[in-house]
Order: sequence, then C-alpha cells, then structure tokens
Amino acid sequence: MSATIQPLSPTQRMYPTVGIVGVGLIGGSLGLALQHHHLATQVLGSGRSAANMAEAIKIGAITQIATLSEIAEQAQLIVLCVPVAQTKAVLEQIQPQLRPETIIIDVGSTKSDVIAIAKEVLGEQIGQFIPCHPIAGGAQHGATAARVDLFEQRQFIICPLLENAPQAIQTVEKMWQQLGSTVFQMSALVHDHIFAAVSHLPHLLSYALMLQVANSEDAQAKFAHAGAGFRDFTRIAGSSPEMWRDITFANSEAILEQLDDYILILQHFKKLIQDGNSNQLEKLLNIASQSRNNWKG
Amino acid sequence: MSATIQPLSPTQRMYPTVGIVGVGLIGGSLGLALQHHHLATQVLGSGRSAANMAEAIKIGAITQIATLSEIAEQAQLIVLCVPVAQTKAVLEQIQPQLRPETIIIDVGSTKSDVIAIAKEVLGEQIGQFIPCHPIAGGAQHGATAARVDLFEQRQFIICPLLENAPQAIQTVEKMWQQLGSTVFQMSALVHDHIFAAVSHLPHLLSYALMLQVANSEDAQAKFAHAGAGFRDFTRIAGSSPEMWRDITFANSEAILEQLDDYILILQHFKKLIQDGNSNQLEKLLNIASQSRNNWKG
Repeated sequence: MSATIQPLSPTQRMYPTVGIVGVGLIGGSLGLALQHHHLATQVLGSGRSAANMAEAIKIGAITQIATLSEIAEQAQLIVLCVPVAQTKAVLEQIQPQLRPETIIIDVGSTKSDVIAIAKEVLGEQIGQFIPCHPIAGGAQHGATAARVDLFEQRQFIICPLLENAPQAIQTVEKMWQQLGSTVFQMSALVHDHIFAAVSHLPHLLSYALMLQVANSEDAQAKFAHAGAGFRDFTRIAGSSPEMWRDITFANSEAILEQLDDYILILQHFKKLIQDGNSNQLEKLLNIASQSRNNWKG
Repeated sequence: MSATIQPLSPTQRMYPTVGIVGVGLIGGSLGLALQHHHLATQVLGSGRSAANMAEAIKIGAITQIATLSEIAEQAQLIVLCVPVAQTKAVLEQIQPQLRPETIIIDVGSTKSDVIAIAKEVLGEQIGQFIPCHPIAGGAQHGATAARVDLFEQRQFIICPLLENAPQAIQTVEKMWQQLGSTVFQMSALVHDHIFAAVSHLPHLLSYALMLQVANSEDAQAKFAHAGAGFRDFTRIAGSSPEMWRDITFANSEAILEQLDDYILILQHFKKLIQDGNSNQLEKLLNIASQSRNNWKG
C-alpha cells in the first residue's frame, strides 16, 4: 500500500471499463464513486429489473446498460454486486467470454461459499477472481439508495486466494483506497466467522424482534409507542430479505454456531430472572455495557 | 388538553418549587427544561453521588441541593427519577413530611411494580401519586448527559390511578405538553406489556449480543471489523446496567413471556436454516422487513 494516495489523472484511470453486475445500493454507489474519483471511463451495468437499470442510468451510476456477454468482452474489471445466491449463474454466463486479463471481484457478505462457487465455475481461471467485502451498506436498497460517498471511511476486506496475482490484488486495494476505504486482508474462514457474529446474527435477531411485534395481537399499540431504542435495534430489519436469506444459507454453519451461543445466553438470562439473581444479571449487563462503551465503532 | 399551548409567564409557574429525586439524564434534563420553559422557580435536587449533584448544580439542572425531607416540605411537585428499585426507600423517606397538596410522579420504565410500592408506602395518600413514563432517554447517563430538549417531540405516558384527582392529572399533562411531549393515557398492565416487547426485551437482547462478542476468543478482531449495523443494534447495550437490572426484575413476568416468544422464533429460524428451507425463511424476513419499513417510528 502506498502511504500517500494521489487522485489519478484521467489518463491514469485504473480500469477504463468497469462492469457492474447488479446495480443496487453497493453497485450503484460504486458506479458513482468510480466516476467521481476518475477511476473508470465507462461503467457498464447489468441487472434484472428494467426500472432499476433505468434509475441507475438516470442518476449516473452507470454510463451504459449492457448484457453479461458485453461486460465479459469489454470490462477490465467486473464487480459482482448481486445477492450471493445469484453468483453462480452470473459467473456461468460470464465465463465463456472472459478474457485472461480481466479481474472479477465480488462484494458479498460471505466468502467461503462464493470462493467454492467461483472455483467450480472458473476452474483454471480462478486466479482472476478476487473475493472482496466492502463493509458498507444500509437498510435501503436499489439504485435509488446509491451514494457517491458510501465507501468513504469504511473498511474493505479482501480474502485473497493463493491463485491471485499479487499485482491484481494491489490494484483492487488501491482502487478501494481511492474510494476512501481502509483495506484489510484475512482468510475467508476468519472472515465468515467474524461476520457471522457481528453482522449476520444481529440481522437475524433484528428481523426476529420485528416479526414478534408484528405478529402480536396488539402490534399497532406496540408500534405506536416504540421509541428510539427500538428504532435503532430494528434498523437492520429493514434490509433486503432476499439478500439476507442468501447470506444466511451461504454462511449457515458459522451462523448456526453463533445462534446456538446466543440462545444459551438468553436461556441463562431467563434463569437468572426466574431465580431473582439480580447480582449475577447486573454483573453480565455490566460486562456488556462496558464493552459497548469502550468500543470505538 | 388545550389545542394551543402558550408559555406561562413567571407569575403563572405551575409548580413554584419542584423537587427532583435522582438528577441523572432524565432528572437533569427535566430540571433544565422546567426552568427553560419557566414552569418552576426553584428546582430542588437530591441524589446519592456528591460529584453528580455538583455537576447538576454546575450545569444549572437544579437550583439547590436538598434532602428528601426538605423536598417533601417545600415542593409542590416531586419527581422520582431514581432506578425503580430505589422507589420504595425514597417514598418511605418522603412520606412522613408529605403535605396533602403535593403531587408525586415517577418516570420509571415499569408501572405495575411502582404502583404496588407506592400503594404500600403511601396508603391513603396514594391519590397524590401519579404513575408516569416519559419515552425519552439514551445510552448516556448522569447529569452530564442532561439536555434541555430531551422531552421535545417525545411521548409521555400516564397510567392514572382511580384515586388520582382529574385536576392533578391534567396539571401534570399540561406541564409535559409544555416541555414538548405528546401525552397518552393507558393502564399500567397495558403499559408494562407493551414496553416489555418494544423496550425491555430489546435491551436484554442487545446486552446479550455484546456479552457474546465480548466473551469470545477473537473479540478484538470482531470489534475491529463490526460495522454500522452492529453499532445501531448494540447502542442500547451501553445503557446503565443498574437501571436495566431493576427494570428487568420489576417487569419480569411480561419480560419472561416476551423472552420465551423470542427464543421460540430463534429456534424456528434455526430449524429453517438446518432444513435449508429458504422459501419459508425469506417469507418471515419479508414480513419483518415490510413491518419495519412501514413503521413511522
């Protein structure tokens, strides 16, 4: 990584043509940011929804709507921004036209499963696939939610494969640093374990609370009086159900482990309440509270 | 309730002297707001920590530090802003000097238990006690966290007793409307059931996740990479452990009921994941997500 990062001049654009597959919050924001930072001349976009693609063109997130074949033939960098479950189908469509110098990255919240899929589809071309995960997002989705500054002051995680060329990894790192992110490298296994705990589980927990309140007889009164704590706790329950369904099944092993641990803690809380053991409950709430207040999130 | 609320002139102050017992976030903010809106001339404050009381004087939340006896003798309105578990001891100290025209309100997050305590201690004077709950707060605590606008655009809930004089209830309502809150009345039972679901349970859930991450072997890596979702989900885990211990035991029956329901949902999620039932999981996430996005919180 270079210590000082200078904006590239137009003649130094990293990837003249970038192809974005799936122009939602992440893909749309990437398109805006790449053009804003002069990192790409042409941003080709592909997606399932015609209305969303029209919106992506309208807000300038992409310069052109393209097919997957056109993207495979023209782009130096292809960014997969589709829900994890669509990765295989997209790679299968790209693979036949994939040129040897093209780099493919993904932005999925899970890595082991995406790597397995990419190895299966790309075979000997697997070195062209660099598994990535920008820690950015939000409950809003679709191109309308795209923001040029989405990756500023965010983390960007790369889980490099042995087959990746160091030069290719560096170029991806540099690009994301130009977008304002701090880049980290870690193994896919470590990545999936960490994010099961701090992202995937909390999403399921937040969905579960919304479900509980929504399905209760007095849901209307509850929603009418719920305050700021409820609002923050359930913010992530507004996220895309399709995306979080895919993430859940893509990282199910690590998530089930975290879910089991969490249920054990709740059952322990329950016992402490039933036993009237206020000292022990306060001790645990104290550990949690101090950890939260010490966290520089 | 009057449709138009005009600030009172100094000669119209509702309660010349207000006594605040416990000058933390809520008590301190109330002291600031009562003076800002010219609703009280003198704000007497009482509290356990000398340092916190000095801070309360310094920021102008109270005009004078006082004993509970002095507050009982001088205040027209006494506001109990102590953790729920201290309510009994405070009422017992106030009761012997309590004048018949004085009104006592509390601001606790649970109501049935506080009412039982007040009835026990105040006996025939119970009509002077009006159970209240401002839906305002935050993870910060202590007088330093006090804010003059804490109650603006917030809900204020009164759980009136049959013994309360309608005039006394109206005066409390009017005062809190002057502070910018919208006032609701409901029974203590309904109150405790609603807030077990939308406030008390989420706090325990948020504490539980912090506990799980903090107690894991790779806690440091997890905290280093946790993002905005984790931040919002765990914000309420920074709240006062003492206060939430008290709330948990004060409303344990309703909370245990909600906790059981919640564990059932998590176990159902677990089964759907183990069974690979992605359709059903997505259906549930969809209900949750739509409820969250339709909620005008």
